[in-house]
Amino acid sequence: MTADIETLRRDLLAAVGDRGLLDPDDFSGRSCDPFRPVPILAPFVVRPATAAELSEVVRIAARHGMVIVTHGGLTGLAGGAFTRPDSIVVSTERMRAIEEIDETAQLAVVGAGVPIEELQNAVEGKGLFYPVDLGSKGSATLGGTIATNAGGNHVIRWGMTRQSILGIEAVLADGTVVNAMNRLIKNNSGYDLKHVLIGSEGTLGIVPRAVVRLVPRPDSQEVAFLAARSMEDVLALLVSARRLPALSAFEVMWQDYYRLMAESDTGRCPVAPEFPYYVLIETLGYDESGDRALFERFIEDVLERGLAADGVLATSDRQRRDLWHVREGSEVTAHAFGAIVSFDVSVELDQVSAFVEDAYRNLRERFENVRGVTLGHLGDNNIHLGINIGATTGQRTIEIEEAVFDALLPYGGAITPGHGVGPLKRGFLRPHKDASEIAMMRRIKQALDPDNRLNPGVLL
Amino acid sequence: MTADIETLRRDLLAAVGDRGLLDPDDFSGRSCDPFRPVPILAPFVVRPATAAELSEVVRIAARHGMVIVTHGGLTGLAGGAFTRPDSIVVSTERMRAIEEIDETAQLAVVGAGVPIEELQNAVEGKGLFYPVDLGSKGSATLGGTIATNAGGNHVIRWGMTRQSILGIEAVLADGTVVNAMNRLIKNNSGYDLKHVLIGSEGTLGIVPRAVVRLVPRPDSQEVAFLAARSMEDVLALLVSARRLPALSAFEVMWQDYYRLMAESDTGRCPVAPEFPYYVLIETLGYDESGDRALFERFIEDVLERGLAADGVLATSDRQRRDLWHVREGSEVTAHAFGAIVSFDVSVELDQVSAFVEDAYRNLRERFENVRGVTLGHLGDNNIHLGINIGATTGQRTIEIEEAVFDALLPYGGAITPGHGVGPLKRGFLRPHKDASEIAMMRRIKQALDPDNRLNPGVLL
Repeated sequence: MTADIETLRRDLLAAVGDRGLLDPDDFSGRSCDPFRPVPILAPFVVRPATAAELSEVVRIAARHGMVIVTHGGLTGLAGGAFTRPDSIVVSTERMRAIEEIDETAQLAVVGAGVPIEELQNAVEGKGLFYPVDLGSKGSATLGGTIATNAGGNHVIRWGMTRQSILGIEAVLADGTVVNAMNRLIKNNSGYDLKHVLIGSEGTLGIVPRAVVRLVPRPDSQEVAFLAARSMEDVLALLVSARRLPALSAFEVMWQDYYRLMAESDTGRCPVAPEFPYYVLIETLGYDESGDRALFERFIEDVLERGLAADGVLATSDRQRRDLWHVREGSEVTAHAFGAIVSFDVSVELDQVSAFVEDAYRNLRERFENVRGVTLGHLGDNNIHLGINIGATTGQRTIEIEEAVFDALLPYGGAITPGHGVGPLKRGFLRPHKDASEIAMMRRIKQALDPDNRLNPGVLL
Repeated sequence: MTADIETLRRDLLAAVGDRGLLDPDDFSGRSCDPFRPVPILAPFVVRPATAAELSEVVRIAARHGMVIVTHGGLTGLAGGAFTRPDSIVVSTERMRAIEEIDETAQLAVVGAGVPIEELQNAVEGKGLFYPVDLGSKGSATLGGTIATNAGGNHVIRWGMTRQSILGIEAVLADGTVVNAMNRLIKNNSGYDLKHVLIGSEGTLGIVPRAVVRLVPRPDSQEVAFLAARSMEDVLALLVSARRLPALSAFEVMWQDYYRLMAESDTGRCPVAPEFPYYVLIETLGYDESGDRALFERFIEDVLERGLAADGVLATSDRQRRDLWHVREGSEVTAHAFGAIVSFDVSVELDQVSAFVEDAYRNLRERFENVRGVTLGHLGDNNIHLGINIGATTGQRTIEIEEAVFDALLPYGGAITPGHGVGPLKRGFLRPHKDASEIAMMRRIKQALDPDNRLNPGVLL
């Protein structure tokens, strides 16, 4: 260890204490990527417990010419957690308190390091629900979802993370602590700074804690699984489903995905696998008989109008779980394909079909054995593709990405709406984003982090 | 007219053409305030029709050392439209096109100068609804509501303006046109610049047009008017009402307001005026029989639990209008009081009662004949007070404001959540806002408008 590193270690130790500092031996088992080993190259992982400690860490980093990379649950797919030798990793893992749950105001004050599932479990007992609901919720932290403005299954009802955040505390690149812990739903006194930071992928500030908005915990759930003959019918189903005030999910699966599920040995075949599209529709409400009546009338209506060609309406909790199980088949895809290049893109509804066709055409022109699964939260414009081209999938990731993103370009779609841009998709951001937007982003970055000290290389 | 002003006029004329330029004679009838005559002190009102024209105007203003004040519908109550002799007024009145309404994506591309009601009427025929619903919607423009992040009656269901905006175009202080006309619900590729501009009261950029998000036009409405014996009961009603997925309004009236309505000759007395609180609850949905069943069960439940002491459930469109009429009695207040100092503040729910008591105590300690009306969108933490102290109300506005804002301070409430801070409430912002927030606001202002050219004196 050089003298400089020694001094840095001493300074950090003084700021965060013994429990707050990890040395390489302590974090050698950690990976910066959830699906492959990406070691932490930083000399230290620092675990401040408060905004004040974090502020001190940020100042120390600046003094030593180090940059900061913030780590939450390490579930991100865009490399936002990747490090360099001159990084100090700030982990939010000790910002783990749920300080308060207010049942009347329906809000909670929550540390950035709290995993989403832990937050959901804590508020459930009080009759409340945190509606940002992700596959990775067991590990993904509140802080990470704020940084990426994560979505999930319920965006169609309760919006993305942005919509569930009332207030934040933030530490800026110069160590300033910004107290914007607003608890009010309506508060237009001045710029709403949380919205500058949410979705900025840790490049403008680090959020130690936040005030989150909760909703009443649903106690009635309806789920149907429908087959559709065309994308036109799928979109007409969506327009109809939006008339259900309790609509909480509208998940579309293409035949390529559904066939894989239906042909697996996992009992995932609620309707015949002959249709081009399948849709899972869910409502979450608070009045079982009333919600059921509304949902049944909706199903009858869309069957009668021929928008759904076939369908199943779950009548028990078991059946509802089973229908969701069809949608949550990533382990089947992984088993069938092995390596997958995952895409999370958004396209306008009337261009979804054309984009998907173009993407697969591009892929088939460039690779021999293209296999893919296609599904998405269509109500949010969001499509997931999982692509495999055989044994070289891993090595040729960038080429696969180029093929898909090239197809996206003419449609003005958005790349990586769910996991951030990170350093991994950064190269693809420029052609997909208006130059005027990138210039304005740079001005804001320059104003708040002129030395490019926070998550450098991410996004911008 | 001095030579400088001549040159300025010629430059502006070249940028916006004859129809785009108004001279003092043309705008002498306009007031910068909806309730009293506040003349425009600027030499010109410029009416660019496009972002390109606006960009040119902004550059000309800079060249001539003039500042820009943006005018929308001139319904704001915070003086955001007030001018100075070195102002050029930019009016959005010729940015008046509804360029597109997409029925599947449920969005519209709308000029900033389009009044909210015009937008609502235009989309209604396509089975859609723009859910930001304000008393001033006949005049208030989309641009003005974006600048102030306006709320309205339906915030509890569809959020404030921010939640209904998908994309914007913006002209910055240096004339840069930022194209952020996003049409996708989920798009996390880069900083979400619209959220930096929404609610910034025209101080960071001027928005010529926007992509707005629409919802299906409701075709079923339920309205109940309930009396409550205590604020505790009102809050329990709110917690219960939040379990109605179609809940679209929760409007609370204090006895001072309700008595005034009940005792007026306008037939506004659905229940006995003896209770301390009254609540109007509305759902807007898409299935009349189903919505009615859910609403009736809710009403039965809260009556049974004693949360509502008395109540009326409307059974016809006429009755529903009549119940809303009770809530919309500003003309009765104006008739009874004459001059009124209006407040639009937000407080945490468990402090609403205490704040209202403190505010009136402060007022009564400082003035002799205090009369007031108290009501609010309580689901959004929002309370409106209308205060009269007799003939000197107008002259003593600032003192009245001090009395109320002093009461607000210990509760950490927010001033002017609905109409912006403007120049009129600017002096009150500082003590009500954390210094760290104001410092960060200044850094963003400095980055985007270093010469303080856009709406100077507003907000910051």
